[in-house]
Amino acid sequence: MSAKTRLTPGDTIGILGGGQLGRMLAQSAASLGLKSHIYCPDANSPAFDVSASYTVAPYEDTDALNRFANSVSVVTYEFENVPGETAAHLNAKIPVRPGVKALEVSQDRLFEKQFLSNAGVAIAGFAEINSQDDLEAALKGFGGQGVLKTRRFGYDGKGQLMIRKAEDTANAFEKLGAVPAVLEDLIPFECEVSVIVARDLDGTCASYDIARNHHENHILKTSTVPAGVSSRTAETARTMAEQIVSGLDYIGVMGVEMFLVRDGNGERLLVNEVAPRVHNSGHWTQDACLTSQFDQHIRAVAGWPLGAASRHSDVIMENLIGFDADDWQSILKDPAARLHLYGKSETREGRKMGHVNRITDKTA
Amino acid sequence: MSAKTRLTPGDTIGILGGGQLGRMLAQSAASLGLKSHIYCPDANSPAFDVSASYTVAPYEDTDALNRFANSVSVVTYEFENVPGETAAHLNAKIPVRPGVKALEVSQDRLFEKQFLSNAGVAIAGFAEINSQDDLEAALKGFGGQGVLKTRRFGYDGKGQLMIRKAEDTANAFEKLGAVPAVLEDLIPFECEVSVIVARDLDGTCASYDIARNHHENHILKTSTVPAGVSSRTAETARTMAEQIVSGLDYIGVMGVEMFLVRDGNGERLLVNEVAPRVHNSGHWTQDACLTSQFDQHIRAVAGWPLGAASRHSDVIMENLIGFDADDWQSILKDPAARLHLYGKSETREGRKMGHVNRITDKTA
Repeated sequence: MSAKTRLTPGDTIGILGGGQLGRMLAQSAASLGLKSHIYCPDANSPAFDVSASYTVAPYEDTDALNRFANSVSVVTYEFENVPGETAAHLNAKIPVRPGVKALEVSQDRLFEKQFLSNAGVAIAGFAEINSQDDLEAALKGFGGQGVLKTRRFGYDGKGQLMIRKAEDTANAFEKLGAVPAVLEDLIPFECEVSVIVARDLDGTCASYDIARNHHENHILKTSTVPAGVSSRTAETARTMAEQIVSGLDYIGVMGVEMFLVRDGNGERLLVNEVAPRVHNSGHWTQDACLTSQFDQHIRAVAGWPLGAASRHSDVIMENLIGFDADDWQSILKDPAARLHLYGKSETREGRKMGHVNRITDKTA
Repeated sequence: MSAKTRLTPGDTIGILGGGQLGRMLAQSAASLGLKSHIYCPDANSPAFDVSASYTVAPYEDTDALNRFANSVSVVTYEFENVPGETAAHLNAKIPVRPGVKALEVSQDRLFEKQFLSNAGVAIAGFAEINSQDDLEAALKGFGGQGVLKTRRFGYDGKGQLMIRKAEDTANAFEKLGAVPAVLEDLIPFECEVSVIVARDLDGTCASYDIARNHHENHILKTSTVPAGVSSRTAETARTMAEQIVSGLDYIGVMGVEMFLVRDGNGERLLVNEVAPRVHNSGHWTQDACLTSQFDQHIRAVAGWPLGAASRHSDVIMENLIGFDADDWQSILKDPAARLHLYGKSETREGRKMGHVNRITDKTA
């Protein structure tokens, strides 16, 4: 049970979390001849249908965690909010990849920004906020504008407050819940872009092409590749992504979200946040690359070498959110489209039900 | 429970057979938001690991078959030797696709040749053989040479006898087991090629590009696309494949094996045999096409429209037979390779353990 564990076909990968990401990881593991054991508190998890075994138990159930650890060769996770104690408990018994450090950094926006800053990648200015006084002092440094975000548990636009003018500032710390927070400098950006990067046990990195992301209601709607950025920007994105995973001694796939800024200084990138897992903005790799992000993550956490991250087609990935998935029949009629559905039994507003990749001949 | 049944995401497809083909069908079904129920007598079937449910029972167990039929919306199969009574029993309750007629034709070489001949596609000469006398009479018509094959249960070179000279003829019918047989004219061919064709519930057909197949020890070793045939030959292959599936009112994917003959009459094709299922020589579609043959078959048997069968890359598929699969580590190091392993617990000589697709930029 060493940090250098390498799996053999037939071995089992433990996956914490049974949503669509765990499901697609389990599907890739099976294609590579590995078994999956999904651990999830939700008895109705879509990943269970495609994995050799599963456990339904709370993340705090140490007996269940012990049995889980004994049944697998390595553990990975589909979400960054794995409780720290769960990860530590498992990590004492068995390799947890991408790693406990990556979880700690990505679970806390302050730690994340401090790490990114130390790793030498460009990020927006930020300040630690523990009170309304902290906030008012920090805003002075940012021209009175900024985004106030909780340090923990924010996602899809939740746990955020935009401050553009003086009225927004009053009681803002209270409004956010009076919890530890960070203030980010408000940078006018053209769009969000992202890079899916992988790093293997030997430290080799592979980055996919940069994608341009479009959000609706704070949820990713489309990812488009090529992203329409200069080759210099694309190269910078790749370099920054690889600096980040190398700095974390990371094993697996990471999603690195960045802002594309175009101003008097030309085109530049600021890293916004990182996700220590396969990422929604990387679903396009399933149909435009030989090695999908899911295959790549499984290869890395298995201690195997990475596959090529090169792309054979242009692609637009569209998320099917909530009742979007009711359009499955018209999607099936589009010959350029590949439909992916997650097998969720209940459609709910805002719920990610599937996605579709539309590919065309490679142009750039 | 009509012949026109169309599934909805969340519905279940029943699959007879739990080998690698059933496994890859179940994986495609899951990607499309459908569940699978595998029915197989072998408790150790690799498809079970990736399907929502499974039944271990003999194909003759009518109680188990009834429960199976009640739990699924449509039934398909991964192998052509489904017992006729099993297919008929299920078909009385629920649509069986590609269909009972396709099974009858493909289970008997004589019926197959008669059907192909009537469908208007080119095949080698053949004769029905029920005795040594029949054989000797027929050989006279074929210049004393031919291939004697059992009508039923032949595969991978089994159930065949090559007759090239007079000594081969003596007792040949006895040697083959004195079972109903056919004699095929011995045609010198350059190689075997194959076309994977699909047909949907509305009669629309889609054919993949023709593949050039190379066998070792009578087992498929590689399939290469493009196949290096003229565009006219490629078009003929496609036309013949679509005539065959249309003639059978077929629903699903079929593998059509042909001989490529180059002689004084130029380049031509003779259909050798058909497989009413996804086919080993179509595994290249997983990584060189947006719609794999497995996705395509699931779409068809679900009553959904077909996806595009177009190809985005050149590809060589290599079967990993027996201990070939021990090379998984070197395959993983090849950036152009995608490894597929079937999760079989025991490696045996001649057993299909996996395959690898190696893709390159599209040239033709």
